[in-house]
Amino acid sequence: MKIAVDAMGGDYAPRELVRGTVAALQKQEELEVLLVGRPEELEAELEACGWEGAGGIRIVPAQDVIAMDENPGLALRRKKEASVVVAARLVKEREAAAFVSAGNTGAAMGAALFQMGRIKGVARPAIASPFPTARGLCLLLDAGANADARPVYLEQFAHMGAIYAENVWGIPNPRVGLLNIGSEAEKGNELSRETYQLLARSSLNFVGNVEGRELPAGVVDVIICDGFVGNIILKLAEGLAFALMERLKGELEAEFRTRLGAALALPAFRRFKKGLDYQEYGGAPLLGVKGICIISHGSSKARAIENAIGAAVAAVQRDVVAKIQEKMRAFTGD
Amino acid sequence: MKIAVDAMGGDYAPRELVRGTVAALQKQEELEVLLVGRPEELEAELEACGWEGAGGIRIVPAQDVIAMDENPGLALRRKKEASVVVAARLVKEREAAAFVSAGNTGAAMGAALFQMGRIKGVARPAIASPFPTARGLCLLLDAGANADARPVYLEQFAHMGAIYAENVWGIPNPRVGLLNIGSEAEKGNELSRETYQLLARSSLNFVGNVEGRELPAGVVDVIICDGFVGNIILKLAEGLAFALMERLKGELEAEFRTRLGAALALPAFRRFKKGLDYQEYGGAPLLGVKGICIISHGSSKARAIENAIGAAVAAVQRDVVAKIQEKMRAFTGD
Repeated sequence: MKIAVDAMGGDYAPRELVRGTVAALQKQEELEVLLVGRPEELEAELEACGWEGAGGIRIVPAQDVIAMDENPGLALRRKKEASVVVAARLVKEREAAAFVSAGNTGAAMGAALFQMGRIKGVARPAIASPFPTARGLCLLLDAGANADARPVYLEQFAHMGAIYAENVWGIPNPRVGLLNIGSEAEKGNELSRETYQLLARSSLNFVGNVEGRELPAGVVDVIICDGFVGNIILKLAEGLAFALMERLKGELEAEFRTRLGAALALPAFRRFKKGLDYQEYGGAPLLGVKGICIISHGSSKARAIENAIGAAVAAVQRDVVAKIQEKMRAFTGD
Repeated sequence: MKIAVDAMGGDYAPRELVRGTVAALQKQEELEVLLVGRPEELEAELEACGWEGAGGIRIVPAQDVIAMDENPGLALRRKKEASVVVAARLVKEREAAAFVSAGNTGAAMGAALFQMGRIKGVARPAIASPFPTARGLCLLLDAGANADARPVYLEQFAHMGAIYAENVWGIPNPRVGLLNIGSEAEKGNELSRETYQLLARSSLNFVGNVEGRELPAGVVDVIICDGFVGNIILKLAEGLAFALMERLKGELEAEFRTRLGAALALPAFRRFKKGLDYQEYGGAPLLGVKGICIISHGSSKARAIENAIGAAVAAVQRDVVAKIQEKMRAFTGD
């Protein structure tokens, strides 16, 4: 299987992208990675990690790079040969089965949408992001592709998320919840009230509204909200975990006794930190496009890229795109 | 000064309401509390905490109670003599300067709105909730009064929140931020983009958009969003802090060494926990009504009630209602 990697996108590109690719190749059999970017830089990085060039990696040249803070629309119009565009085009042209990018999220979405196109019947593609809970992971859609949404978009997000959770994460009949401000059907805003009705009538394993307080406990496998709310809560959770840890660290360092206690407890803190690390979660698929596109956090290091490649492989193997196409026929009347 | 307390509302009513009232009276001079509820129950609780009846407390009888899970609209129509209604009426009739309720939030809002009425020019009242950050507190509006909002509502929330933060919290020229999914003016959904323009043109100390990741760091004093987003993030923060602590506890208990470390570090954990405890923050004012109404968390214990009474006293002393009335003249053209 061939996976394209936008090797120039992300805060630590190309180094960590190359390292993550090499790590993935050491674990996955029959994997070939198309590293997209500036050949001289990529070759230098490959050499630095001692890659022998025995196969498994092919460099696909792309001279342009879209920066993290560029306006995605403008950048995509101006830089037609940007690494992320070339990576998406490889999927469109069936040179690769999927692509991974840790670069500018808007540019990755735009490149995927323009190159690969939308699945018939899908109103809007959505980013499905893993959200860590007390009982494992929950898949959150939409993580930010659609700041404004309509009830039918959210209904489709729920179907696409359930397909991904069932096939890639292996959760049979995943529990789907609607993020809301109360448990009753009539609670919430216009969007959530109308979406509730659509989900309640659907074939999904819809368990109802989920309040903000319940989400971290892991009461559902898939949680649905618009991209405005989804993006805010994902980032809030990240910021909050960091702020809480800083605060706890400050309290622990305040006196000798607690400093000593903290030193003894260090292994527990390390395990705890690792459990919260999004680098372990493998990136977020953009669902609803005709191909697999995995979007990783901008600050991804090698471990996150390795996991994102793993997620791409799993999504291809489980034929997620075909399963979404099948489900979306209900929305086109075909 | 007289403050009415809905002594029957909340998960621990009337016991913790009575205890909190007694604690507040021991600290505040020239305070009189009108305890609203079933006299026999309140007298028993007062006796249980050794209250001598030397003054400072007057029981105002109200036989009905609105339960936490009742539909607020129906309950307010049926129970015209519910404790929360009587408490709000005491403010309307100038028998009390403010009221505090830890009961059904919808019922407290409804009672405040129907009895006291809206300030002229205010499109919608909003709940202003303290949100703990790394640098202290941030005032979040709206915490759940308006699931659907318009740009002008949010602009008014910003003015009301800034008045409260400046006068009750003593923060000169408070920094106001708009919760959004990107820093640029054009980022976000329709509501946030239009609100940005209104805030940028206002007299407020508007510092721009604030992303979910930045909020816990304490970059603003007042944060603005609609009540759907506000309620979700407040509850998420609560649920997340709890889930993180449970997880850390699990890791600490996993082996002898870390258990020992945790035991030594106990004082730090206690200080940390206290800093996160909403019981310390004094409840959330409903801003935009003609009078002071402080809404406390349903699970408030005595300490939270004591702080809520303190917040009510401060809001009355600083004349928050008159200051909001003054500001709202700009919206009526008077």
